[in-house]
Amino acid sequence: MSTPWGYRYAQRTKGVTSSAIRELLKFTQDPNVISFAGGLPAPEVFPVEKFQEACHAVLAQHGPESLQYSTTEGYAPLRELIARNISRYGILAKGENVLITSGSQQALDLIAKLLINRGDKLLVEAPTYLGAMQAFNMYGAEYVSVPVDDDGLRTDELEEALRSGPKFMYILPNFQNPSGVTLTLERRIKLVKLADKYGIPIIEDDPYGQLRYEGEHITSLVVLDRKNLRRDNGYSLGNVIYLSTFSKTLAPGLRLGWIVAPNDVISKLVQLKQGTDLHTPTFNQMVAYEVAKDGFLDEHVRKIRQVYGERRNVMLQALQDFFPAEVKWTRPQGGLFLWVTMPPAVNCNELFRAAVKQNVAFVPGDCFYAASGEGCRQMRLNFSNAKPERIHEGIRRLSLAVKGMLKNHSLEPVLA
Amino acid sequence: MSTPWGYRYAQRTKGVTSSAIRELLKFTQDPNVISFAGGLPAPEVFPVEKFQEACHAVLAQHGPESLQYSTTEGYAPLRELIARNISRYGILAKGENVLITSGSQQALDLIAKLLINRGDKLLVEAPTYLGAMQAFNMYGAEYVSVPVDDDGLRTDELEEALRSGPKFMYILPNFQNPSGVTLTLERRIKLVKLADKYGIPIIEDDPYGQLRYEGEHITSLVVLDRKNLRRDNGYSLGNVIYLSTFSKTLAPGLRLGWIVAPNDVISKLVQLKQGTDLHTPTFNQMVAYEVAKDGFLDEHVRKIRQVYGERRNVMLQALQDFFPAEVKWTRPQGGLFLWVTMPPAVNCNELFRAAVKQNVAFVPGDCFYAASGEGCRQMRLNFSNAKPERIHEGIRRLSLAVKGMLKNHSLEPVLA
Repeated sequence: MSTPWGYRYAQRTKGVTSSAIRELLKFTQDPNVISFAGGLPAPEVFPVEKFQEACHAVLAQHGPESLQYSTTEGYAPLRELIARNISRYGILAKGENVLITSGSQQALDLIAKLLINRGDKLLVEAPTYLGAMQAFNMYGAEYVSVPVDDDGLRTDELEEALRSGPKFMYILPNFQNPSGVTLTLERRIKLVKLADKYGIPIIEDDPYGQLRYEGEHITSLVVLDRKNLRRDNGYSLGNVIYLSTFSKTLAPGLRLGWIVAPNDVISKLVQLKQGTDLHTPTFNQMVAYEVAKDGFLDEHVRKIRQVYGERRNVMLQALQDFFPAEVKWTRPQGGLFLWVTMPPAVNCNELFRAAVKQNVAFVPGDCFYAASGEGCRQMRLNFSNAKPERIHEGIRRLSLAVKGMLKNHSLEPVLA
Repeated sequence: MSTPWGYRYAQRTKGVTSSAIRELLKFTQDPNVISFAGGLPAPEVFPVEKFQEACHAVLAQHGPESLQYSTTEGYAPLRELIARNISRYGILAKGENVLITSGSQQALDLIAKLLINRGDKLLVEAPTYLGAMQAFNMYGAEYVSVPVDDDGLRTDELEEALRSGPKFMYILPNFQNPSGVTLTLERRIKLVKLADKYGIPIIEDDPYGQLRYEGEHITSLVVLDRKNLRRDNGYSLGNVIYLSTFSKTLAPGLRLGWIVAPNDVISKLVQLKQGTDLHTPTFNQMVAYEVAKDGFLDEHVRKIRQVYGERRNVMLQALQDFFPAEVKWTRPQGGLFLWVTMPPAVNCNELFRAAVKQNVAFVPGDCFYAASGEGCRQMRLNFSNAKPERIHEGIRRLSLAVKGMLKNHSLEPVLA
């Protein structure tokens, strides 16, 4: 039914349509479907009992405060806890440099609100996180893309892209969504130097940094940035804004993310957030603080690493066992995703329809590119959500769909 | 310290500065200050025990689900509960017409994102809710204002304003923030008719509708709208989008609001919300549903009405007892605020500084007007947050500041 609203929609909403992932998620609610499509944590790992204790403690000790309005910046003890936690990775920030956001998605929306004028060009990885483009598109962003290989962003192609004058770079250095690859230290250093040379700041999105299953932590861009200097009067941050979240280490249903930035940026973001949602729920912040303090978070992250590490191994082994030799995939050292590249004969949007018939789902690669059509031979597979035996079975089903398409393709000349 | 970000801020952030209310809130954290400045519910009325039970039940029965990602639209049982609740006021909507938002402030942000192109004119009341203008300003809104008197929006001045072609009207019909006045039924009918005649849709913001302390409920604009017809195949909504929230009836620290709109509008808003914060916290929605179901919400609203009604009475009586005869104020039938108009001799921004010295705070009227300078003789007083004896004492202190200014003013010719 038509209503008087449609023709009043703002220009920015043109072309905003339901995302592919969103439509997929509906289909994957069928329990018969093995879904590698979402980016969902394993629900059986959520520390439900710890949340029981924390909710009880917060309501018993700070009941009225936890249910009341609070400051836009966020709950001070939580901001300080985050600052302490990231300092172990060399990120020098105080609580006042941390803005609590309503999930990492809101961090992206606020950054976009702060920085993007319609028509501004942003430098993104190809492929990159779909949700970031959804946030940026609303403010009229355009893109220049730099490809990613097994060592992350191709810094040998970066300089030319920087010459086109992007407003900022949006980079996921660790276990990138969607490709699962990690930017090497050598390339990080080159990236930070080029950022400085061309005066182009960086948004470093790091939702998965703590979920490393092999190898050693690699220094963050925000730490490598030469302007991240300790000063006598505290700390300062410079050319890199750092984003992270509790969604992958505690629980996404709380919607708690954060932005680490210089004071002047935080202060402006606070003003924008005030008009956007006043503040992130007081109760959730206090509960997360209660859960995370006293070392529980570290303990829990160790557990997640073990569970997801095993699932990654199961998926890698199943791909090895079931998939035809022509298919290639990345080998992530952490995170939630790996990235599969099909031989030229396979279009992943067509493969998706074949996979649905096998009751298995993935996300076709197309939607992770700023330029259309680039990812038609690629797909993202999530390995954190399904249990090992389901991963094994799902990859087997998917391999049937792949083999079916390869077979059809090889028959085509005969049929033609 | 300057960083490389400032000169990259988007055009929309120009002139975004910390709001007056925000700065005030810092001052009012001093426990010696009696604050009538905020719009805070009474924390001692929050149903903490009920929240204890609800958190426990949700985690025990739906632990993993409550901590997981969920759909952007919101938790279906909560959407249906809201639809049932508003149907008692004649608003015919199904769960699918209800979008759960991260507080009512996010509803305003999403509406602005959906509808406002830079330079679009919006019709607002004078005075109107500051937070709405903060949300709208980010998208480049401009304003045409129609004054409010004791019967709400002056509909006799509406038609001329509508001829200037606003994109939509933003109206708070019940116990308006900041003035506390309520739009009469006669004016509501005229407003809806004029909206229809000029084809200008209405955003009806109703955070306080249930908090009526005297008189009878007046039919909502969304119900009066002739396009809000029940159809054979369900319900339809038309020219009015309706907003409300749990912030005033349950607890603002959960950040739960909602938008009631036609299906096509909801569907577009869902896409915008997806890029903004993915979804409102799953856990909070499930806890609110657990608290609200089985009639507790109604019971609790009755309690709030009693507590706030008494505080309103205490404030009205104290104003009567302490304030000079030249001062006028509104007599709200519900809500959280009343509105004071000083004699010409008193500038409320100056009065604010005098009040601070008496350890009492309010919000000067200026910031509630789209056009600057209009509210310099006015102030907003909140009566929900402070306890009765503090209200009495606070109004006494404020009266001293007022009398001091009137005295100084009467002495001015002598001193000159």
